Amino acid sequence: MVTKLGEFDVIARYFRRPARRAVLGVGDDCALLGPEPGQQWAVSTDMLVEGRHFLAGTDPRRLGHKTLAVNLSDLAAMGARPHSFVLALALEQPDPGWLEAFSGGLLALADEHDIELVGGDTTRGPLNLCVTVLGLVPEGLALRRDAARAGDELWISGTPGQARLALGHLLGEWELPPALLQRVLPRLEQPQPRVALGLALRGVAHAAIDISDGLLGDLRHVLEASAVGAVVELDALPACEVLAQQPQARRRACQLAGGDDYELLFTAAPARRDDVLRAAAQAGVAVTAIGSIEPEPGLRLRDAGGRSMAADFFPSFDHFLQP
Amino acid sequence: MVTKLGEFDVIARYFRRPARRAVLGVGDDCALLGPEPGQQWAVSTDMLVEGRHFLAGTDPRRLGHKTLAVNLSDLAAMGARPHSFVLALALEQPDPGWLEAFSGGLLALADEHDIELVGGDTTRGPLNLCVTVLGLVPEGLALRRDAARAGDELWISGTPGQARLALGHLLGEWELPPALLQRVLPRLEQPQPRVALGLALRGVAHAAIDISDGLLGDLRHVLEASAVGAVVELDALPACEVLAQQPQARRRACQLAGGDDYELLFTAAPARRDDVLRAAAQAGVAVTAIGSIEPEPGLRLRDAGGRSMAADFFPSFDHFLQP
Repeated sequence: MVTKLGEFDVIARYFRRPARRAVLGVGDDCALLGPEPGQQWAVSTDMLVEGRHFLAGTDPRRLGHKTLAVNLSDLAAMGARPHSFVLALALEQPDPGWLEAFSGGLLALADEHDIELVGGDTTRGPLNLCVTVLGLVPEGLALRRDAARAGDELWISGTPGQARLALGHLLGEWELPPALLQRVLPRLEQPQPRVALGLALRGVAHAAIDISDGLLGDLRHVLEASAVGAVVELDALPACEVLAQQPQARRRACQLAGGDDYELLFTAAPARRDDVLRAAAQAGVAVTAIGSIEPEPGLRLRDAGGRSMAADFFPSFDHFLQP
Repeated sequence: MVTKLGEFDVIARYFRRPARRAVLGVGDDCALLGPEPGQQWAVSTDMLVEGRHFLAGTDPRRLGHKTLAVNLSDLAAMGARPHSFVLALALEQPDPGWLEAFSGGLLALADEHDIELVGGDTTRGPLNLCVTVLGLVPEGLALRRDAARAGDELWISGTPGQARLALGHLLGEWELPPALLQRVLPRLEQPQPRVALGLALRGVAHAAIDISDGLLGDLRHVLEASAVGAVVELDALPACEVLAQQPQARRRACQLAGGDDYELLFTAAPARRDDVLRAAAQAGVAVTAIGSIEPEPGLRLRDAGGRSMAADFFPSFDHFLQP
């Protein structure tokens, strides 16, 4: 009999051990290494598998972009400045056209963020893309997920849910008119890591995490790590025009449980509201207050009419527990 | 029409660009990052794919060991001290027994080398293991592959060829009696990265590389990077007892073209011979002088009778060019 293990069980049960040398080990967006005084290295790795993280036939230029983007997003969520990365690549066959487009998309985003590809590995095998990214953050300024405090406001960047809305169309769960699809598809295929926002939030925000598995699921990680609870105001959730046109149930499912948006979810003291808005303006990203951190553990959803809703209605994504 | 690309072509053509910020970018055992004075970070990544780097059904404890060992070997070949690593893992299904054995083997080797797992990623997909390793080396002391000089002696640690001899048996290319197989199989399944030797060779050796794709193939990388040539004395190649009993053609093919041994190939000035031997004794590893570096480019093989042999008779391993 094989026990049903989720991906977070796998990490906690078999691979997590107390950090001895690292400032911060397994379990945040990045690990933090700090052997030299004054600054720390943020390290993160993400693996993309065909059929799981992207559909077969995805445009290779966009795939190259996304492969690096999801890793930069981890640095963003830590408030780290991107420095360099390595790429391990398994390919069934090296197709020059595919490689040129893939590396083009990857390196264009690297240039945009002034980050350097410093090494890698190529091998034959089922298509698999694995990037490890390195960034720098001044000592004590990293945005850790264990730093949320009761009383903090809860903020989200951008309009999460667009990537999930596009994916639902591609999977045949619902149908979007072509014009609307074209407006949400780039969020699935070419997410923009919020690196500038992460940097601007240093010293302003307390905790931060990037939304890769869904807003509620990723919020739960913050709450558990910080030993606090939260209330999310459902009607405060920002929606783009396309999301706003969707039936309420679909819209909320996309907003609360849709992964792959790579927006930042973060907390800050109410007294820092102006600083948060200034940081967002500086980074050129919209941010919205969507709730608050409370001392009582647990995650509570509430609409504008004061009605509550069960948070576990929106499960977050788990690679091993979902089909 | 798809051009036939080798793995080194893929790297050179699509991913290699001049290093701007890194001390050393794509193309050595590790990249070197050096933003702080006095020391540099060595970074390397290796991906292991089922059916390519290990056979299906490989004992998971040994596989955990090997996944980290091949990465530590890259640090060894750079003279870097292991610091930390991240693991990305794609699994079809999380089987607790497999995971316990795999993480057990991985973390036991990590403890042996006092290196810490600081992060990772788990996802569902065809079995794929990707480690990125970080080490430290004092500025100017890294053993780079572009540092070989004409007149250097060429050295090898241990007795390369054993892993290939074991693999040939498993693939049915030849048959070894069970008692002999048991003596070479551990070199294939549980290679010992030569970290202590790499550290002891700092300031003694000039260039170094680890033998992952075959002695001649990896030597060629050193020669190209250093713009020199070499002569290899075939009858000087060290052989373990099991290899020594093999027919000459098989023995030499295993020694010269067999990958997966993770021994160190390095060069040092003849005047440093005693220091090389002292470093080897300190690390508890045998080393053997097998030839010398010459100004004239190219790779020349010579036996004890002075007979020459074509080096391209022994192709090194390329993931895309071999079936």
